[in-house]
Amino acid sequence: MSSMTGKNIKISVFGQSHSAAIGVVIDGLPAGYIVDFERVNAFMARRAPGQNVLSTPRKEADLPKVLSGIAGGATCGAPLCAVIRNGNTRSGDYSNIKDCPRPSHADYAAFVKYNGANDVAGGGHFSGRLTAPLCFAGAVCMQLLEKKGIFVKSHIYSIADEKDTPFDLVNITEEDISSKDFPVIDGEAGKRMAAKILEARSHADSVGGIIECAVTGVPAGVGDPMFDGIENIIAKNIFAIPAVKGIEFGNGFDCTRLRGSENNDPYYIDGNKIATKTNNAGGITGGITTGMPIVFRAAFKPTSSIGREQDSVSLSKMENQKLIVKGRHDPCIVQRAVPVVEAVTAFTILDVLSD
Amino acid sequence: MSSMTGKNIKISVFGQSHSAAIGVVIDGLPAGYIVDFERVNAFMARRAPGQNVLSTPRKEADLPKVLSGIAGGATCGAPLCAVIRNGNTRSGDYSNIKDCPRPSHADYAAFVKYNGANDVAGGGHFSGRLTAPLCFAGAVCMQLLEKKGIFVKSHIYSIADEKDTPFDLVNITEEDISSKDFPVIDGEAGKRMAAKILEARSHADSVGGIIECAVTGVPAGVGDPMFDGIENIIAKNIFAIPAVKGIEFGNGFDCTRLRGSENNDPYYIDGNKIATKTNNAGGITGGITTGMPIVFRAAFKPTSSIGREQDSVSLSKMENQKLIVKGRHDPCIVQRAVPVVEAVTAFTILDVLSD
Amino acid sequence: MSSMTGKNIKISVFGQSHSAAIGVVIDGLPAGYIVDFERVNAFMARRAPGQNVLSTPRKEADLPKVLSGIAGGATCGAPLCAVIRNGNTRSGDYSNIKDCPRPSHADYAAFVKYNGANDVAGGGHFSGRLTAPLCFAGAVCMQLLEKKGIFVKSHIYSIADEKDTPFDLVNITEEDISSKDFPVIDGEAGKRMAAKILEARSHADSVGGIIECAVTGVPAGVGDPMFDGIENIIAKNIFAIPAVKGIEFGNGFDCTRLRGSENNDPYYIDGNKIATKTNNAGGITGGITTGMPIVFRAAFKPTSSIGREQDSVSLSKMENQKLIVKGRHDPCIVQRAVPVVEAVTAFTILDVLSD
Amino acid sequence: MSSMTGKNIKISVFGQSHSAAIGVVIDGLPAGYIVDFERVNAFMARRAPGQNVLSTPRKEADLPKVLSGIAGGATCGAPLCAVIRNGNTRSGDYSNIKDCPRPSHADYAAFVKYNGANDVAGGGHFSGRLTAPLCFAGAVCMQLLEKKGIFVKSHIYSIADEKDTPFDLVNITEEDISSKDFPVIDGEAGKRMAAKILEARSHADSVGGIIECAVTGVPAGVGDPMFDGIENIIAKNIFAIPAVKGIEFGNGFDCTRLRGSENNDPYYIDGNKIATKTNNAGGITGGITTGMPIVFRAAFKPTSSIGREQDSVSLSKMENQKLIVKGRHDPCIVQRAVPVVEAVTAFTILDVLSD
Repeated sequence: MSSMTGKNIKISVFGQSHSAAIGVVIDGLPAGYIVDFERVNAFMARRAPGQNVLSTPRKEADLPKVLSGIAGGATCGAPLCAVIRNGNTRSGDYSNIKDCPRPSHADYAAFVKYNGANDVAGGGHFSGRLTAPLCFAGAVCMQLLEKKGIFVKSHIYSIADEKDTPFDLVNITEEDISSKDFPVIDGEAGKRMAAKILEARSHADSVGGIIECAVTGVPAGVGDPMFDGIENIIAKNIFAIPAVKGIEFGNGFDCTRLRGSENNDPYYIDGNKIATKTNNAGGITGGITTGMPIVFRAAFKPTSSIGREQDSVSLSKMENQKLIVKGRHDPCIVQRAVPVVEAVTAFTILDVLSD
Repeated sequence: MSSMTGKNIKISVFGQSHSAAIGVVIDGLPAGYIVDFERVNAFMARRAPGQNVLSTPRKEADLPKVLSGIAGGATCGAPLCAVIRNGNTRSGDYSNIKDCPRPSHADYAAFVKYNGANDVAGGGHFSGRLTAPLCFAGAVCMQLLEKKGIFVKSHIYSIADEKDTPFDLVNITEEDISSKDFPVIDGEAGKRMAAKILEARSHADSVGGIIECAVTGVPAGVGDPMFDGIENIIAKNIFAIPAVKGIEFGNGFDCTRLRGSENNDPYYIDGNKIATKTNNAGGITGGITTGMPIVFRAAFKPTSSIGREQDSVSLSKMENQKLIVKGRHDPCIVQRAVPVVEAVTAFTILDVLSD
Repeated sequence: MSSMTGKNIKISVFGQSHSAAIGVVIDGLPAGYIVDFERVNAFMARRAPGQNVLSTPRKEADLPKVLSGIAGGATCGAPLCAVIRNGNTRSGDYSNIKDCPRPSHADYAAFVKYNGANDVAGGGHFSGRLTAPLCFAGAVCMQLLEKKGIFVKSHIYSIADEKDTPFDLVNITEEDISSKDFPVIDGEAGKRMAAKILEARSHADSVGGIIECAVTGVPAGVGDPMFDGIENIIAKNIFAIPAVKGIEFGNGFDCTRLRGSENNDPYYIDGNKIATKTNNAGGITGGITTGMPIVFRAAFKPTSSIGREQDSVSLSKMENQKLIVKGRHDPCIVQRAVPVVEAVTAFTILDVLSD
Repeated sequence: MSSMTGKNIKISVFGQSHSAAIGVVIDGLPAGYIVDFERVNAFMARRAPGQNVLSTPRKEADLPKVLSGIAGGATCGAPLCAVIRNGNTRSGDYSNIKDCPRPSHADYAAFVKYNGANDVAGGGHFSGRLTAPLCFAGAVCMQLLEKKGIFVKSHIYSIADEKDTPFDLVNITEEDISSKDFPVIDGEAGKRMAAKILEARSHADSVGGIIECAVTGVPAGVGDPMFDGIENIIAKNIFAIPAVKGIEFGNGFDCTRLRGSENNDPYYIDGNKIATKTNNAGGITGGITTGMPIVFRAAFKPTSSIGREQDSVSLSKMENQKLIVKGRHDPCIVQRAVPVVEAVTAFTILDVLSD
């Protein structure tokens, strides 16, 4: 594994779905900064399972316990470590998966990489549960960003073929998406999305979707091309989130169908600063911020764990075998992944701003 | 800047469009390996400008000169450095850009980051010309990959709204795309693409497109999740290529519209090995290779440099100003970017295989 | 802070002397390897305080609890995290130090770096207690090294001006130094060293010393010069141990007084392998192992915490102030640092061998 | 190889003694800074060979040519690459070394690591000649440090058993050591050192020595413990210099013979700032600067290349063999290594200050 990332704000994630605990170390935080852990917990509650009919009924307390890094109520310069106990684990559910890999899960690839010693229980280190420590780290970093006037916002851009109103790339005005149970801009679209999820669940199936994320308040001139530009480092870290299969910045793949004259973002004087009339670049040119909102979209595949019979193989017998994955699973993880995308974005941006 | 990347195979890129030379250091290559530099030169010729009516008429010799890293005709363990002289430079062409940034170029962002000291001539370090050293590094690494039975192939997936036949994700059989002048699978689609480019050029405009890239022969079990999985590191490096605004693996953003039962790739026994019937995952689950072809697509925006008048600002006067970019530019860089995508992919894959 | 190190075997250390817990994440361990945690605990007991009259009477259970990284009794490829609860903490003892920095401690430098928010209780993240997680990590890695026939051994080379018999650089034969209470080769020298420590203690003072460490069994050809050669990476990591002020390899500083003809290590055929008759190089030439034992010495300053009145300043009043450090402290930390040196060496060597 | 180092100021060194050229890439320099290349050349001249009877008569032009990174006379944010042509190469001199490794050179270790493909001519990438690009990088960084009021000074502390007057650790006042032909504080000691070198040369032998280096003007609070503290990173980089076998900070190994009460550096109010009465810590506690001068010493072994017959082996025949190294060599490299130590220190300090 290589579950550490970052240059100045370094993140080290550990734990498996069914190990004693999961957690994260955040190294490099500035000292003397008071973390509001109630807000951190509230942020983490957004990704917690079992909140409504759209997600897995597995209950998790998910309350992180801070082991280090705080003194006198504030960060003290030492690495901040938080752990979350794993309570509700039923390892017995996963016995057959060791030999019969679940299609499109990491089971088979990990079996080969780790010579069969990988922890399959609950998905091990590949479990979506490992996004909880990512959320913790992001929630802490987000509070630091806010002090700089930087905000990270995201919403469900689409579920299956149902689309939310997209962000206005030039002007991200939405105030309260994050506090919503189902984070969409257009509530009606949200209802149609929920219906899609429930329909998939009724067929023991799953659906995917797209999350759109914006960062406002980042000044122009941030990012280190060629290899540590903003797009490089956001992409590198966003692909750490399970199920992400694509990322695009600004108008993304759509730009490939435009003429340069349509896609270029013209500059103009906006009061006493320089802005662009459009923001097809998603706030980044040459890997460096322009001062416009950073906007990207991440594609999430439909949950691999489904209740239907699937074709697989027996690794020990080297023969084809049918597989039925037991247990109950999220028919869609997109809505729960919204805070995860925000969190990963937050620690990535804080990292590059800490240069 | 942060123009170094890699863990085992480390790449350091240097140079500006109009500096004395550009080049690259490749550190970590295994020793005792004979590089066929004629093939390297042939590979680099694929991205060279001025080959046909579709690209800029600027002529470049682009012949790399190896300064170090070779002894007795083979790699010797020491860093391999190659430089390419910059001959045909006309810095005078770019004088007005210093004050009036070209829309969607790095000019403005770099001006802020580098306090106005950035080299604007020819785009400086942001120039597409810097993809030549990337190609050199990739061409060297590709020869090493081939000895392991690993091949990198790519084609133009689309230009504007004209699409090539996509790769069969399960079975990449195309043999000779790379040797084509205009690397497409479907020659008729290629003609339509070329027409789009010429049409844009006739309007002093530009078009974008998508490149699809596949890597065959990588065994299962390669990649280091969470943060150094295959998707993470390919994405991180591909975004170093100018004009890339998105990347997707396997069926990418399309997977968000599928059900899990449609998107999951069922395993089966294929002779004496394990394969998947489909390859929507693009050869990667959990950040680790499955043994199926690695496939991704990168979105290239239309060339920012266009001949039409555009809105911009005077940085010194802080007032709106019209801009006409002089000089002749590529109406489309997608066809020239094909070997660049292959090259970046090659050194990235060799890096992760060198663990 | 930057309490992470390593390329393939990555270590992340967290905790303060008086935080809820201290611990370590080890990322990159090979999977399928059974760790004997009883041996790990036994190793850690070697650095535990309160064992005899020579060290601080503070009692610590120091039993690490493994939170992750193990499945079915073996490493599973996921990061291995272990935590050690902090029990016997008395933060009240340290209230005056916040304003009046202890000479030669990190107090003042950390005060400046962390804007006064650093955790001074018990030394915070700078405490010798943080060597416990280093020992855990090293003990785990040592077991892996042993499977490769690689052993790390060390002894107290000197305390004050009392010297142990040095290692025979060519032939490290000592079998049982590690199991000794007071790890020296020459028991009589050990008694003299102990007397020096007790004498210093009787004066509320402290003494320093030198630890000599050898690694046997590392094959020739390991190490990555110029900047990641064996000396570079051992030095980088050994200086993470509090109180280390110098490191030397082979005959070290003594080589500066020799002629080349005396210092050079002549090669000869030793059975079916190549060896050197002397090993002044300490097993390393050009940053790469020669196959001879790797040997180095680390200088430990006398414990900064002493019971005598010292000159210091009041940071708030910016005036000179006398300081008496309360509490009981190790009159010498060298004997307890022996396993720490071994541990850091072990994870460093395993890291470079994991390339 | 791993000839790249640094976090913010990244250095990439390339070249072999007899390759077409050697050079260095410096990535991360701030933009807009005018480099005085005449001063860079003057600095580099200090390590150039052939200046007097004490060093090898090999003549080198050693004039670096800047290929990139400068625009309009100033740094432009792009990586700065400089190359130095290799002119006076006589590869024929080294033919027998391929099979018969020179004692205490990297020949044998490199032979094993690089499977016999390493470049032995002139020492390849291990040659002292590769310190020329290190000097270039350091000379550039030193100019930047000077603008911050930071100066790097060093002198020959000893040759064989002849010692210079050591630095006053608290107060580095020497103004003009660097400009001296033979950089010592005490000219009489310098004469005795020179005599030692000449005497060794007359016996076709060599001598070693110690270089003492100080950095003044670094403010308190700089350094990132545990693993990127000042001692860690200086040590890591100094060991990149060929022939270095030890490093010590402050009073170094001598501190092991002192009591804590003697070794601790008492604080006092010095005007309006905090200082220490002694500086046994060498300006560093807990890995972080105290504001006092950073002082360290590096041990250089006697040159491995000597003219006397030595015992070695034939790698192809696996039998003992006598070796006489032809050509003329430095009887002592210490005096030429003085600027190299300064240079490596300069880019290391600038790196940590660029956080």
